[in-house]
Amino acid sequence: MLFHVQIDVRVPHDVDTEKLKELSAKEHERAKDLQLQGKWVHLWRVAGKYASISILDVDSPAELHEILNSLPLYPFMEVEIAALCRHPGSLELTK
Amino acid sequence: MLFHVQIDVRVPHDVDTEKLKELSAKEHERAKDLQLQGKWVHLWRVAGKYASISILDVDSPAELHEILNSLPLYPFMEVEIAALCRHPGSLELTK
Amino acid sequence: MLFHVQIDVRVPHDVDTEKLKELSAKEHERAKDLQLQGKWVHLWRVAGKYASISILDVDSPAELHEILNSLPLYPFMEVEIAALCRHPGSLELTK
Amino acid sequence: MLFHVQIDVRVPHDVDTEKLKELSAKEHERAKDLQLQGKWVHLWRVAGKYASISILDVDSPAELHEILNSLPLYPFMEVEIAALCRHPGSLELTK
Amino acid sequence: MLFHVQIDVRVPHDVDTEKLKELSAKEHERAKDLQLQGKWVHLWRVAGKYASISILDVDSPAELHEILNSLPLYPFMEVEIAALCRHPGSLELTK
Amino acid sequence: MLFHVQIDVRVPHDVDTEKLKELSAKEHERAKDLQLQGKWVHLWRVAGKYASISILDVDSPAELHEILNSLPLYPFMEVEIAALCRHPGSLELTK
Amino acid sequence: MLFHVQIDVRVPHDVDTEKLKELSAKEHERAKDLQLQGKWVHLWRVAGKYASISILDVDSPAELHEILNSLPLYPFMEVEIAALCRHPGSLELTK
Amino acid sequence: MLFHVQIDVRVPHDVDTEKLKELSAKEHERAKDLQLQGKWVHLWRVAGKYASISILDVDSPAELHEILNSLPLYPFMEVEIAALCRHPGSLELTK
Amino acid sequence: MLFHVQIDVRVPHDVDTEKLKELSAKEHERAKDLQLQGKWVHLWRVAGKYASISILDVDSPAELHEILNSLPLYPFMEVEIAALCRHPGSLELTK
Amino acid sequence: MLFHVQIDVRVPHDVDTEKLKELSAKEHERAKDLQLQGKWVHLWRVAGKYASISILDVDSPAELHEILNSLPLYPFMEVEIAALCRHPGSLELTK
Repeated sequence: MLFHVQIDVRVPHDVDTEKLKELSAKEHERAKDLQLQGKWVHLWRVAGKYASISILDVDSPAELHEILNSLPLYPFMEVEIAALCRHPGSLELTK
Repeated sequence: MLFHVQIDVRVPHDVDTEKLKELSAKEHERAKDLQLQGKWVHLWRVAGKYASISILDVDSPAELHEILNSLPLYPFMEVEIAALCRHPGSLELTK
Repeated sequence: MLFHVQIDVRVPHDVDTEKLKELSAKEHERAKDLQLQGKWVHLWRVAGKYASISILDVDSPAELHEILNSLPLYPFMEVEIAALCRHPGSLELTK
Repeated sequence: MLFHVQIDVRVPHDVDTEKLKELSAKEHERAKDLQLQGKWVHLWRVAGKYASISILDVDSPAELHEILNSLPLYPFMEVEIAALCRHPGSLELTK
Repeated sequence: MLFHVQIDVRVPHDVDTEKLKELSAKEHERAKDLQLQGKWVHLWRVAGKYASISILDVDSPAELHEILNSLPLYPFMEVEIAALCRHPGSLELTK
Repeated sequence: MLFHVQIDVRVPHDVDTEKLKELSAKEHERAKDLQLQGKWVHLWRVAGKYASISILDVDSPAELHEILNSLPLYPFMEVEIAALCRHPGSLELTK
Repeated sequence: MLFHVQIDVRVPHDVDTEKLKELSAKEHERAKDLQLQGKWVHLWRVAGKYASISILDVDSPAELHEILNSLPLYPFMEVEIAALCRHPGSLELTK
Repeated sequence: MLFHVQIDVRVPHDVDTEKLKELSAKEHERAKDLQLQGKWVHLWRVAGKYASISILDVDSPAELHEILNSLPLYPFMEVEIAALCRHPGSLELTK
Repeated sequence: MLFHVQIDVRVPHDVDTEKLKELSAKEHERAKDLQLQGKWVHLWRVAGKYASISILDVDSPAELHEILNSLPLYPFMEVEIAALCRHPGSLELTK
Repeated sequence: MLFHVQIDVRVPHDVDTEKLKELSAKEHERAKDLQLQGKWVHLWRVAGKYASISILDVDSPAELHEILNSLPLYPFMEVEIAALCRHPGSLELTK
C-alpha cells in the first residue's frame, strides 16, 4: 500500500555541522537501500525548501513507522502522512 | 519539470447532482487524456477524503495553469502546488 | 490495520430537515453493519460537538476509502485520518 | 468516563540522550501499570510520528490530569484532549 | 465535574429573522432552567462578539453533550470544550 | 469588570529545576493573595495541560496588566484575554 | 478605558445591494454619533480591505458590547478585540 | 501616512537580564524621541501581554522600516503591519 | 511607493456566469488602464490558482485603497497587502 | 520562468553577531551577482520586517533550489514559493 510522506527538516543552528554532515550522508545511504528494496518508490526535493515529498510502498502502517523512525535525520523531521489509494480517474500507468 | 498538486474538492450541498455527475465524468476523461499524453504522471486518491495528490510533468508553470484551469471540477477545487526537483538521495529509478 | 478517523459533521442550515433525519438513520444503520462485520472497532461521540472519533480495522487504505465514502452523511463530513500501529508501551490488552 | 488524548512528543536536540532513554523506559513502565489498572484502555502509535493516541478511562478530569502529569516524558508533550461519550450509532461492542 | 465551554454563534444572513428571535428566546429559557438546576454555573458574554463562555457542572461528558445538544441555537454554534479540575494555586473560594 | 484569562505555561527544558520550583511556589502565593483580595475570582486547571483558565475582577485593563505582569511565571506564559460582560441569558446567580 | 477593535466585514454576495447601501449609510451615521460623543476615538480604514481598526473609549466591557452590537453591519462583522492600557514608553501626548 | 504596527515581544529565557533591562531602557528613550518628533503618534500596551499596538505617521514605507529596524528590542519582535487610510465614516477629529 | 498585493478570488458557485464574465472583462480593462498609467507595475498569475500577485506603485495607502476598491471583482477578493521598500542587497535594476 | 519567493529570516538570539554580519555581507554579494546575471529580477524589503519578497527568473525548479540553497543566510530562512505565469489582464510591460 502507498503512503504520501511530506518531510520538513528543521535543524537548530547550534547542531554540530560535522555531525549533521554525517547524519545526512547516512540518510542518503538509507534512502538508497530502501529505494533498491522497492519500499521508497518516489523521493522528490521541494524546490527552495529543506523539505521532501516521498511515496512509500509498504505492507503496513507499522512498516511505514519503522522505516521513517530508522532515518538518521528523523529527530529533526516534521512529518505529514496521508494514506493513498487508487483514484477512479487514474489509468494507473505508473505506481 | 514536475509539480506536486494537492487538490481538495469542496462541492456545496446545493449543487445540482446531475450536473456534478456530468462534471465528474468529464473530469475523469480529461485526466485520462492528460495521463496518455504523459502530462499527468501520477494521480492518487487520498484515502477517506474527496481529495487527490498528483504529479504533473509540464514544460512551464503556464502549462500547469492551463491544465488545472481546464479541469471541469476546477471551480470546486482548493489547490496547493509545490515545484519539485531531484533529491540528492534519489536514485531516480522512477519519475 | 487500524486507522484513526476524526469526523466533524457540518450541515448547512438550509438542508431539508427530513432528508437529514433520513440520512442520519441510514448512517446509524450503516455504522451498525460495519461494527458487526468488525470493520468499525470503536465509535465515540466527542462530547458537546457534532463530531465523532472512530477506529476502523481494514485491509487497506482503499477499503478505508470505500467505507467512509459509503456513509450517507459523507458529503457533510470533514475527515482527518491517521494510520495507527503498535505502541512500544502498549500491552495490547485491547485492539 | 473516557477521554481521547493525542500526545505529540517534541524533544529538543540538546536533551541528554541517556536521560531521554531513561525517561522513555520509565514512561513505558508507567503506561503498563496504568493499562493493568484498566485506566489506560487504548494506546496506539501514530504511524510515522513521535506521537500517540490514547483512550483513558478515569473517574474525573482531576484523575486524568494526575495520570498525564505523572508521565516521565510529560514536560516534552503537547497534549490535546477531548471528552468522549456514547455515540447513538455505536453498538458499544467494545469500550 | 466542571467543563469550560466557549460558544461562537454564527448565523447565516439568510436565516429567517423571526425564527431566530424565537430560537434565541427559547435559548435563554433553557439556559435559565439549567442555571436554576445548578448545571450551568457561569454564563458570560464575550464583549463585542456573538460568543459566550460558560462553566457547566455535570455528572459526565454524556450529560454535557445532552445539555449542549438540547440548546435551540446549537446548529449555529461552534463549540470548544475543556475539562477543568482543581488548580494547585486555587483557594477554591468559588466553584 | 471581569476578564477571562487563558494561560498556557511553556517552560524550556533547560530552565533550572530549582529556580522553577521556587517560581511556582511564589506563583501560588501570589495567586492566593489575589484571591483573598477578590481580584482573582476563579482559577481552574485545564485537565491534562500545564494551562489554566481564570476569571479576574479588576477596575481597569491597566490593573489586569499589573496583576498578570507581576506573576513570577509570567515570562513563561502565553496569555489569551477576553473582556466579559453580562449575558442576556444569565441569571447572574454567581459572578 | 480604551479597546482596540479590528473589524473585517464579510458580506455574502447574495445580500440585497439596496439593503446593504442602507445599512452602510446607517453605519456611518451611527459611527459619527459615537465619535461626537467621544466614545469612538479613532476610526481608520485598513488600506485595500473591507476592514477597519478603531479605538473605543468606554466605561466598561458592557458598554463596548452595546456599541458594537448596535452597529447596523454588525451581523456581517468578524471582530477582534484587545483591551489597552498605558505603555511605559508612551508620553501619552495623544489618547 | 499612517501605519498600524502590532508588536509581540518574545524574549528567550536565557537572554542576559541586565542586557534586556538596558535594551528596554534604550527602547523607551527611542520611543520618546520618535513621539516628540511626531512620528510615533500612538503607543498602547495590550493589557496582559508583552505586546504593543502603535500608529506611526511616516513619509514612506522606507522610513517605517528604518524606525522599526532602529528599535533596540527589534531582534525579539514579531511585527504585523497594516497601512491605514481615511475611513468614510470617520470625522477625523483625531489623527 | 510600492505595495505587494496578493489576491485570491473566491466566486461562490451560484454567481450568475454571465455576470461573472462581464465583471472579469471589466476587471481586465481596469487593470490595463492602471498598467498604462504606471500604477500597476507588475501583475502575475499564481500558476494553478484563481489568484494573482501584483506590485502597485501609488502615492499613498489611500490611493492603493481606491484602486483595489474600484476593481469589478473586488467583492469576491481576499486581499493580503505588504508595504515594500528598498532592500539593502538590491541593485534596483528594476522597479 | 518566474518564481515568487517570500523569505522570512529568523536568527536565534545566541548566533554570534560577527558571524551573522559576515553572512549578511556575503548574502548581499551573492544577491548582486544573481541580479547581474538576470536570475534575481526583483528584490524588495517588506517594510518593518526582517523579510523580503523576490522574483527569480530561472530555467527550472532545480535551478531555483540551487540558487536559494546557495544563499549564506539560507539556514535561517523560512521560504514560501509560488510559480508564476502570465496573467490574462497583464500587458506585460515589465517582467
